[in-house]
Amino acid sequence: MNAAVYHGDRDIRVEHVGDPSIVKPTDAIVRITRAAICGSDLWFYRGVTKLEPGDRTGHEFIGVVEAIGKDVRTVRPGDHVISPFVMSDGTCEFCREGLQTSCVDGDFFGGKKSGGQGQFVLVEHADGTLVTMPDAIAHDVAKHNAAVALSDVMGTGHHGVVSALTKPGSTVVIVGDGAVGLCAVLSAAKEIRAERIIAVGHNPHRLEIARQFGATHTFDSHLDIGNEIVELTSGGALHVVEAVGNQESLDLAVHVARPGGTVSFVGVPHNVAVAPLTTVFYNNLSLRGALAPVRAYLPRLIESLEAGRIDPSPVFDLTLPLGQVAEGYAAMDERRAIKVLLEVS
Amino acid sequence: MNAAVYHGDRDIRVEHVGDPSIVKPTDAIVRITRAAICGSDLWFYRGVTKLEPGDRTGHEFIGVVEAIGKDVRTVRPGDHVISPFVMSDGTCEFCREGLQTSCVDGDFFGGKKSGGQGQFVLVEHADGTLVTMPDAIAHDVAKHNAAVALSDVMGTGHHGVVSALTKPGSTVVIVGDGAVGLCAVLSAAKEIRAERIIAVGHNPHRLEIARQFGATHTFDSHLDIGNEIVELTSGGALHVVEAVGNQESLDLAVHVARPGGTVSFVGVPHNVAVAPLTTVFYNNLSLRGALAPVRAYLPRLIESLEAGRIDPSPVFDLTLPLGQVAEGYAAMDERRAIKVLLEVS
Repeated sequence: MNAAVYHGDRDIRVEHVGDPSIVKPTDAIVRITRAAICGSDLWFYRGVTKLEPGDRTGHEFIGVVEAIGKDVRTVRPGDHVISPFVMSDGTCEFCREGLQTSCVDGDFFGGKKSGGQGQFVLVEHADGTLVTMPDAIAHDVAKHNAAVALSDVMGTGHHGVVSALTKPGSTVVIVGDGAVGLCAVLSAAKEIRAERIIAVGHNPHRLEIARQFGATHTFDSHLDIGNEIVELTSGGALHVVEAVGNQESLDLAVHVARPGGTVSFVGVPHNVAVAPLTTVFYNNLSLRGALAPVRAYLPRLIESLEAGRIDPSPVFDLTLPLGQVAEGYAAMDERRAIKVLLEVS
Repeated sequence: MNAAVYHGDRDIRVEHVGDPSIVKPTDAIVRITRAAICGSDLWFYRGVTKLEPGDRTGHEFIGVVEAIGKDVRTVRPGDHVISPFVMSDGTCEFCREGLQTSCVDGDFFGGKKSGGQGQFVLVEHADGTLVTMPDAIAHDVAKHNAAVALSDVMGTGHHGVVSALTKPGSTVVIVGDGAVGLCAVLSAAKEIRAERIIAVGHNPHRLEIARQFGATHTFDSHLDIGNEIVELTSGGALHVVEAVGNQESLDLAVHVARPGGTVSFVGVPHNVAVAPLTTVFYNNLSLRGALAPVRAYLPRLIESLEAGRIDPSPVFDLTLPLGQVAEGYAAMDERRAIKVLLEVS
């Protein structure tokens, strides 16, 4: 089969690799139909984090079950499935609590494991990991494409909003106009039904999508934006989602949080030299790390997608065949695309 | 009157200064009977934070109301009162929510304001700030001395335990055997009624007080302590209080937190070069800054002290007259004393 392979900074190639095969009785093989490139993939693409040459890439995909191990009970060959970006056994205490990202036997896709940017992928703990998609999504081209967003960015944006303790009717600030930030806006508007949704970004086109997703206020980031948002919210918002992951955005997120409020951050912070802990202390803020247990949200988000309540597909503004994955990475790296959808089969 | 004045690093002197007088109709003057030196006072004593020569010091005191402004309603001259370490108006949205440390018109004692280490102190917003003590505390020597702890360290320890979302019957780890860490143990045991209380410190004598206060397990800090606590708790504790404020203790607190758990930190972190945000992210932790709104807890803690449910007085292991405040700072700086009680009048 063909799959994307990491060879070095800014060097991702689609190559012929060995087909995956069932190893454990709880494994499944999924034939991938659609995949995506994640903003977090840019960290290794740019050399900020490290992969080794030969490592597989990708963790966002949907597809059709090709084969299952003998202990798999909940999916069978031919089922259309969606996978969260973390594999989890579904039975440990963390999985039972809905914190599948801390599964005691869980793992990420990619690296030495098979990745999501390829024709087939080995999914461990298939029962705990995969969720079947209804026909209304599997056989509707638009919804099928949109469903890829549920494997990570939509679930991650939703988790950010949930982790910030955003309530119906409340005010939430979302810092970042990448795919996750935009999906957080969509979650705040359609899933949580916040009243005031303040989106902050750098890109007018993306902020236009934020408005389309339900942002009531958008701010094109500039020097004094923090004070403007504090003024708009009469002292800051109780709920803030940080969806960029650098020093500037974390500082802004903490700055616009109301005393006693909650700031969630949905990505690993990079290049953060000084965490704003002094402000967190004096203002009695909660700073919540928020690696999304997407598996916990999938049933709800699939239902919302099926019902037409959410449509995250506008975050995909470039569609490429798997063979052009390198061009997809470059487009996202150069900010020519918000997010790339890969047509695989 | 006499009061402690800052002159430079490790140079605190008791000097004759002007008597305070009522400025605003909401002010009160309190004649101080007992005061204390706080671990946080050591930051400026050691030059880590800055005061200016001539600044006043101290923020922990109890005493008797000497005079009140014409709008003061809830205390009158002769009342025995206890003050939290922050003045607050009692009427703004944050005060009404119990977050008096974020009062829109609040302020700290000391610096250019009058301080708690002196014969008299000007208390702004007397109605919002001061709480009267019952006779059973005011006129009982032991309880009167113990009450000074309620102005900061007992309330701060309690807030740490509350902010860590500690529940009855739960397991909590408390990192730090200073006065605040010990008071956190007391709160966890007597106010919250946690079941397993794991105290971490450096000093066998202080850990003995921790056990006396209700710690079920104590650890003398050493290299592998983090892994031992993770093992003892079968994967970490859901509730962790960090009561030291440096890199090592913050790292340890985050390390021993169970995925999905909460780590509160009750002091400004100093010398923290790298906040452990990556672990906070991957483990879905909440890192909660916890400047204690002591005013919110005073009624309850006064009642607990009166009833004999809590007695934080063992944290005071050195009592000095106000005139020897310099020796008190030195004793705490050199770790010869946990906490110094100052007899003022």
